[in-house]
Amino acid sequence: MRLICTPRSYGRLLQRHMIHSGVPSNKRCTVAIIGAGAVGSYYGARLHEAGHDVRFFMRGPNLDTCHVNGLTVQSIAGDMHIPASELQTFSNTKDIGEVDWVVLGLKSTALQVVPALVRPCLGQHSRVLAIMNGFVDDQLVDLLPEARSVFGGMAFICVNRISPGVIHHSFYGPLLGGLARVDPNQQHELELLEQLWQPTKVPFTTTPTLLRGRWEKSAWNIPFSGLSVAMGGITIDQIVGDQGLRKLAKQIMCEVVAVANADLQAHCGGDDWEPLGEAHMTKMWDLSDNMGPYRPSTMIDLLAGKPIEVEYLFSQPLQRAWALGVEVPYMHMMVTQIEAIQRMRNLF
Amino acid sequence: MRLICTPRSYGRLLQRHMIHSGVPSNKRCTVAIIGAGAVGSYYGARLHEAGHDVRFFMRGPNLDTCHVNGLTVQSIAGDMHIPASELQTFSNTKDIGEVDWVVLGLKSTALQVVPALVRPCLGQHSRVLAIMNGFVDDQLVDLLPEARSVFGGMAFICVNRISPGVIHHSFYGPLLGGLARVDPNQQHELELLEQLWQPTKVPFTTTPTLLRGRWEKSAWNIPFSGLSVAMGGITIDQIVGDQGLRKLAKQIMCEVVAVANADLQAHCGGDDWEPLGEAHMTKMWDLSDNMGPYRPSTMIDLLAGKPIEVEYLFSQPLQRAWALGVEVPYMHMMVTQIEAIQRMRNLF
Repeated sequence: MRLICTPRSYGRLLQRHMIHSGVPSNKRCTVAIIGAGAVGSYYGARLHEAGHDVRFFMRGPNLDTCHVNGLTVQSIAGDMHIPASELQTFSNTKDIGEVDWVVLGLKSTALQVVPALVRPCLGQHSRVLAIMNGFVDDQLVDLLPEARSVFGGMAFICVNRISPGVIHHSFYGPLLGGLARVDPNQQHELELLEQLWQPTKVPFTTTPTLLRGRWEKSAWNIPFSGLSVAMGGITIDQIVGDQGLRKLAKQIMCEVVAVANADLQAHCGGDDWEPLGEAHMTKMWDLSDNMGPYRPSTMIDLLAGKPIEVEYLFSQPLQRAWALGVEVPYMHMMVTQIEAIQRMRNLF
Repeated sequence: MRLICTPRSYGRLLQRHMIHSGVPSNKRCTVAIIGAGAVGSYYGARLHEAGHDVRFFMRGPNLDTCHVNGLTVQSIAGDMHIPASELQTFSNTKDIGEVDWVVLGLKSTALQVVPALVRPCLGQHSRVLAIMNGFVDDQLVDLLPEARSVFGGMAFICVNRISPGVIHHSFYGPLLGGLARVDPNQQHELELLEQLWQPTKVPFTTTPTLLRGRWEKSAWNIPFSGLSVAMGGITIDQIVGDQGLRKLAKQIMCEVVAVANADLQAHCGGDDWEPLGEAHMTKMWDLSDNMGPYRPSTMIDLLAGKPIEVEYLFSQPLQRAWALGVEVPYMHMMVTQIEAIQRMRNLF
C-alpha cells in the first residue's frame, strides 16, 4: 500500500528504478489520438512534433478542413503546424491499426462508445492514456480488458478549438498521468508513460495515485467549470473578477478538497498519504487569476446546446461526498443547478 | 408587547374594538395608486370596482394606451374594465391632490423616489399602504414623516401586465396588511385599512406583526423568485417540476423560515409570538404546485434587462440571517448568484 499512496516517497523510487531500467528514452511510438477535440489535438500535435508516429481519428468539418489545411495549433508554448501532407487522419479507427499508445481525448459523455472506437487499435502491448475529465478510470479498465495498461491523464491546460482544424492554447499546459486501478507490481509501467512524453514540450509528471490527481484537477474543475455552467455560461475572468462568485468558488473548492481528502483517506488508509491542501488551492487560484476569459469545455458545450459532462465531472463527486459523510452544501446546490440545466435543456 | 406580537389574541381584540368604534364600513375613500404596474393596477381596479375614488399615476405607453382604451383586467376573480371615460389617470402626482389613501405599487428599487412622488398627495389624514416587496416599511416611515400612518401590504397574487393597459391575474390574490413600525396605541388604525378593502372582492386580512407578514411572503418569494432569477429566468412550473430544483426550493424555504423565526424572536422576545412553520410552508407549496408557468416580477425584469429588486428582497434578508447567526448556505449561494447577475448585467 505504501507504494500506491505515497507520492513523497514515490519520486525517489521511480528515479532509482529508471536509472536501472535502461529503457531508451527516445523510442518512437505509434500513437492513436481518439477524440481530436482541443485537448486531443493539442497533445497529439506535441507528440507528433517530438517525432512520434501520430494518427488522428477525426470526423466532420474538422476532418474535412484538416485534409485540406492540415492541423494548426496557436500556442503560448510555441505554434505548431502539421501540413496536410504529413497529417495522418482517419475517419474510422479500424484503419488506424494496432498502436503502442491510444490517447483518448474524449469527453466522459462518450464513455460507452469507447470500446467500439478503441478496440481496433489495441494489440497485446497497446496501452491507453485517457485524458478525460471525471473519474472514469476504473470503468475504462473494465471497458478495455485487452489493453496492456490503462492510464489516466489530467490536463491542466486552457485550450479551445476556435474553428475546424485550428486549436488555440492560451494558458498553462502540464499533463499529470497515473495508472488506473493501481497494482503495485505494475508501477514500472509509469516509466513507459514518462518516456512517451519525455521528448515533447509538454511538462509531464506522474502521480502514483491517480485518484489524487483526479481530485487535484477536480479542485479546479468543479468550482470553475461548475460555476461557469451554473451561471448560464460565463468565462473564468467573470468568476474570479466578481466579489461574490469568487467567494463561492473558494467555498466550493474547499468543499471539494474536503471530499478529496476523505476519499483518499478511505482508499489509502492510515496517515501515509499526502492530503490536498492550501498549497494546491493557492496554485489553482494563481492560475485562475491569470487565465483571462477562458471558456471551459463544459461551458462551450452548454452554449452550443451539446451534451454536457455532468455525471462524471459533477454528480459522482457529489455522490462520493455524501457517501463519505462530508457536508458540501455549496457544491450540492451548484451540482443540482447544473443537473437541472441539463434536464431542462435536454443536454444529454 | 403582547399586542404587537400575538396574532392569536389580536383577532379577538380587533373584533371587539370594531364593534365599539362605530366607523361606517362603506365610506368612499379617495385613493392614489402610485406605481400602476401589475400589482398596483390590479388592486386599484378592485378598489375602483368597489366604489372608491381611485386615481392612477401612470406613465409612458401604459398611460397612452389607458387614455384611449381604459384599463382592462383579466382575472380569475372576475374580469374588470374601466373605460377611458371613467379612468382617472395622472402623469404627475401633483395633479392628484390630497387623498385619504396612497397605495404604493412600486418596486423596492424605486424607494428613493418615493418621497418626491408621494408627498404631493399627502394631507394631515392621509395614510400610505405600501404593497412593495421587501422589508421597506421602516424606511418608508422615515421617508414619509407627513403621513398619518404607514402600512405595509403583502400581495399573495400572480399578476402580470401582458401589454400596456392590460393586466392578467392568473392565480390567488389575497392581501395581507399591517402597520409599519407598530405603536400599540396605533393598532386601531388597522380598522381603517380593513374598511378600505372590506367592500372589495380582495380577500383582505390584517396582521398585527408586519414583520411576520413580510417573512410569510419572503418564505415564498426568496426561494421561488430567487431560483427563477438565479437559474437565468425560469417560470415557477419549471422549479416545482424539476426534481432537483424542487429540493433546493424546499431547502431554501426552510432556511428562510429559520431566519424568520429568529428575527421574530429577536423582535418580539419571549414565547408570546407565533412562529412560521410547517403549515405555512405546506400552504406555499400547495400554491406553487398549482401556479403554472408564472413569471415573478423579478424574473420579468431580469429578462427585460431592467433593474431587479435585489437589495430589499434578497440581500437584506441574508444579512439578517448572518446578524442572527442562522446558517443559510443555500440561501447564501443563491443570493450571491443573484447579486452577481445584477452586477454582471448591470441591472441596477
